[in-house]
Amino acid sequence: MAIITLTSDWGLKDHYIGAVKGAILKKMPDANIIDITHNIASFEIEQAAFVVRNSYKYYPKGTVHVIAVNTEESEVHPHTVIENEGQYFIGTDNGIFSMIFDEKPDKIFELTIPQDSDYYTFSTRDRFVKAAIHLASGKKVEELGSPKEKLLEKILLHPVIDNNLLKGHVIHIDNYQNLITNIKKPLFDEVSKERKFSIFFRTYEIKKISDSYLDVPVGEILALFGSNGHLEIAINQGNASGLLGMITKDAIRIEFY
Amino acid sequence: MAIITLTSDWGLKDHYIGAVKGAILKKMPDANIIDITHNIASFEIEQAAFVVRNSYKYYPKGTVHVIAVNTEESEVHPHTVIENEGQYFIGTDNGIFSMIFDEKPDKIFELTIPQDSDYYTFSTRDRFVKAAIHLASGKKVEELGSPKEKLLEKILLHPVIDNNLLKGHVIHIDNYQNLITNIKKPLFDEVSKERKFSIFFRTYEIKKISDSYLDVPVGEILALFGSNGHLEIAINQGNASGLLGMITKDAIRIEFY
Amino acid sequence: MAIITLTSDWGLKDHYIGAVKGAILKKMPDANIIDITHNIASFEIEQAAFVVRNSYKYYPKGTVHVIAVNTEESEVHPHTVIENEGQYFIGTDNGIFSMIFDEKPDKIFELTIPQDSDYYTFSTRDRFVKAAIHLASGKKVEELGSPKEKLLEKILLHPVIDNNLLKGHVIHIDNYQNLITNIKKPLFDEVSKERKFSIFFRTYEIKKISDSYLDVPVGEILALFGSNGHLEIAINQGNASGLLGMITKDAIRIEFY
Repeated sequence: MAIITLTSDWGLKDHYIGAVKGAILKKMPDANIIDITHNIASFEIEQAAFVVRNSYKYYPKGTVHVIAVNTEESEVHPHTVIENEGQYFIGTDNGIFSMIFDEKPDKIFELTIPQDSDYYTFSTRDRFVKAAIHLASGKKVEELGSPKEKLLEKILLHPVIDNNLLKGHVIHIDNYQNLITNIKKPLFDEVSKERKFSIFFRTYEIKKISDSYLDVPVGEILALFGSNGHLEIAINQGNASGLLGMITKDAIRIEFY
Repeated sequence: MAIITLTSDWGLKDHYIGAVKGAILKKMPDANIIDITHNIASFEIEQAAFVVRNSYKYYPKGTVHVIAVNTEESEVHPHTVIENEGQYFIGTDNGIFSMIFDEKPDKIFELTIPQDSDYYTFSTRDRFVKAAIHLASGKKVEELGSPKEKLLEKILLHPVIDNNLLKGHVIHIDNYQNLITNIKKPLFDEVSKERKFSIFFRTYEIKKISDSYLDVPVGEILALFGSNGHLEIAINQGNASGLLGMITKDAIRIEFY
Repeated sequence: MAIITLTSDWGLKDHYIGAVKGAILKKMPDANIIDITHNIASFEIEQAAFVVRNSYKYYPKGTVHVIAVNTEESEVHPHTVIENEGQYFIGTDNGIFSMIFDEKPDKIFELTIPQDSDYYTFSTRDRFVKAAIHLASGKKVEELGSPKEKLLEKILLHPVIDNNLLKGHVIHIDNYQNLITNIKKPLFDEVSKERKFSIFFRTYEIKKISDSYLDVPVGEILALFGSNGHLEIAINQGNASGLLGMITKDAIRIEFY
């Protein structure tokens, strides 16, 4: 059974979800439509990229991911379909794809199939669904458009290494208000060389990386590598973002000694 | 695979969704249950009608739409099942159906099948699911109740035409805070006769209808016909409702000259 | 088609839902994944137990319910799988299971299968999914762990009976702000012996139990046995919790005479 996932900033109260699911099911009544999220903040492609990036690798080959955030097409932001490691991604190349993949994906095409209506404001319903059905039916991605050399690069700030210092920042605040940073475990290990360290943020200092939230008493601050490999500042059963007064883009600094 | 959609004002945090999905799956384990929305504001049948109206036509024939808003039955508001263009709609005839369909639907029946419990407050779980399974199994709608001549009419305010003037109002504010009005493209074209025009709302005036949100710079006001054919006031990547101070039922006026 | 339900406190905006659904579909592409809710308040196992308790009995035999609230494992809170009346429940035995089942469930096992990653903060993705696939494939629950005699008991306050008096409290406030109490119909009938009664809460008194919200005019207070058998205080089309100033754990008292 073909799997088509949806990631959008539509919210849950309008007709957008209902219309797109209908358009899929009309052409493929047994499609397994999977809601990844429809609660991306309006137009926030960084947030959408973070969610897709941390979800897609768990899906089987052949899965089609429709990404419906900032979909309006323009000359600089063409509708695009990507094949990578046997999965497909349909959306608008507004920079989001460069934030989803670490390396250039296997195949990139600019969509050239016509859309199904005269309206230009609901590309997902009128064009992406058509491409998704094509791929979910096992047809070739090559038939959907013309090959494209590269994706629009949206520069994400990477952590900065300065000998004994590793500087990063918060890139995502999750539902528990955990602060997820852009420092990942392999980089930490590389700089650390098993030395001692202190993690600084605002007026706080942590000297240890925990394995689990339960490693500290309820209400205490901890640092750990979260389930997607990112260094995370959290409070056991508490709201780190609110209680520490930290938000996205706030700095975190690790000193090794 | 049978498709059953759900539209409700249950919200997402209670057991109502879980119980209804279970009741469906117990009788039809491979049903494709599609959430259209569960975030209709409590008891707001206009909002529910708007969402169903703009979703259902995209679904394949045979789809069963369960509409669970203000479902309590009374003599004036009977439980009702409708067949229209090969699709089915189950709900309470509290006026909502007259707002979903432009014309009298193909078949209307008052539900007479007994319900499954002694409780009268969860008709969806205890009665509508039974009707939905019946229809999704390919059985006849005629077996569910007795034919009914007409639906309860809930009068929606239609746009008013006054020679060179077209007056409408905002009927829906979507997740992006776009202001969706009750003026649709065919009516606009009919009154316009390709004349010039000005669209007035609050203290604003727009002299052009855009094709896409991107036709104006970020942060600027525009008017366009949205993907469901309704005239819409929006701000490119901004929140029109909040920034213009406009809400549902606020007036919009178009002068042709 | 195998049914796997998800109940969590992940919220809707992160990658947690997407990752878990992917992990399920990678191993079982035609699984029917059912969202019960992802909007349990963070760490609130009472609320999660209430939702699962009032949903699960509607599902067919063979259904696997994954309960992802407070999943972190410890010696006192082991990962656990339960079989009851032909359905399966996977989660952490932090007291939640004792609030879901009235009596000791048919079979209890402590999970001993290894998890799929080195991270200890996302047990649902890395361990529960594996157990769920095992069960959804029709394999034996006995192969997942070692038998366990009993569940961690979390004491819920039960109603107190004092001859002519029945004292309970609010245990859940639903999306309509109805106040759902821990007094159920069989207990009420047993104490009542068909006598007259007054229901007291705050400064209010009700002398009647309604069959339906419509039994009183719009805006008036009523009491009824809700669709899950619990005594409920509501306002017809109004928000009882906000308007009466009552919240979870607030007392309700019934005098019979």
